[in-house]
Amino acid sequence: MAQIKRLTDTEIATELGSLDGWTVDAGKLHRKLQFADFVTAFSFMTAAALVAERMQHHPEWFNVYHTVSIHLTTHDAGGISALDVQLAKAMNDLARPRPPS
Amino acid sequence: MAQIKRLTDTEIATELGSLDGWTVDAGKLHRKLQFADFVTAFSFMTAAALVAERMQHHPEWFNVYHTVSIHLTTHDAGGISALDVQLAKAMNDLARPRPPS
Amino acid sequence: MAQIKRLTDTEIATELGSLDGWTVDAGKLHRKLQFADFVTAFSFMTAAALVAERMQHHPEWFNVYHTVSIHLTTHDAGGISALDVQLAKAMNDLARPRPPS
Amino acid sequence: MAQIKRLTDTEIATELGSLDGWTVDAGKLHRKLQFADFVTAFSFMTAAALVAERMQHHPEWFNVYHTVSIHLTTHDAGGISALDVQLAKAMNDLARPRPPS
Repeated sequence: MAQIKRLTDTEIATELGSLDGWTVDAGKLHRKLQFADFVTAFSFMTAAALVAERMQHHPEWFNVYHTVSIHLTTHDAGGISALDVQLAKAMNDLARPRPPS
Repeated sequence: MAQIKRLTDTEIATELGSLDGWTVDAGKLHRKLQFADFVTAFSFMTAAALVAERMQHHPEWFNVYHTVSIHLTTHDAGGISALDVQLAKAMNDLARPRPPS
Repeated sequence: MAQIKRLTDTEIATELGSLDGWTVDAGKLHRKLQFADFVTAFSFMTAAALVAERMQHHPEWFNVYHTVSIHLTTHDAGGISALDVQLAKAMNDLARPRPPS
Repeated sequence: MAQIKRLTDTEIATELGSLDGWTVDAGKLHRKLQFADFVTAFSFMTAAALVAERMQHHPEWFNVYHTVSIHLTTHDAGGISALDVQLAKAMNDLARPRPPS
């Protein structure tokens, strides 16, 4: 796999423009989500876990009841990389699910 | 726990009127859901599993990729009971999730 | 439901004697588990989530890759209660699973 | 991706020799697992779902309470392929989990 590069502060600022709800906290991409209850919070976590495992890129996350607090960073890059932006976008899509047919 | 009673055909017909997407198949409440992909299908199953475990009333279900086919019955009642109606309603709510805040 | 009582320090010390791996951290029951990988860590979390939802008593937990760090407390009791001990025991059982037949 | 080839009957017979519990049913790799309860059955399914999503190769499976019945086939190959053997092996590993440290 090609080396994953750390994004510059300017690149991160640009990406944040289209990452609804995300900020930089402690040098990591960060979002805190609040769901209706534990069931919908953990269901979101399961969806996000499936995407993370497919990407082989995993979050740091904390859950209590209906709240999920997420931090994303790329250890091999020493900071925030394009992988974190990709996972953050996927998480936003999963937190805004479309109904089944 | 009070004995769970089997619903009559008339009672089931009445309940089906407010259970969007459900029918009776092989004497069980039945719905087949199709999601966007495996991730959202399995995420729905996790939410429904949490509710089922809380109710101590579990589905018969089949999944392949984005499809989930569900049959609900109550063994102790020898047919469809109010528990199945309750779980079917909860599954409909979970398949139509509200976004987080 | 009967009022859930906060356990005394003596009662907590007694319970810890049979709670392998648990300590008191910041006034809460605490255990940090390390699994083989993300798949087994998140699979444990799903099992524990099902038990927690059945008990209607949920953990505070943090996951990164193969590590799960758990804190248990009972808000209504203002501290550690018998519910936390019960959930901790269930988590220990789930982290030591028996094979299927 | 290279074309996935259907395994010959001889190749399948050889693979089954090291796939504890699996048979061929209706032209698909098949195993039925029985767990202690719903919690451990669904926890296994979550672990297997994570591996399946990583592989982008998904099972056909049926669950009721503590039972999980699995069929594996590769549509693009028109039968059982090396992907099914790989997923079956991973499922056997997940059904025989190692404890955390």
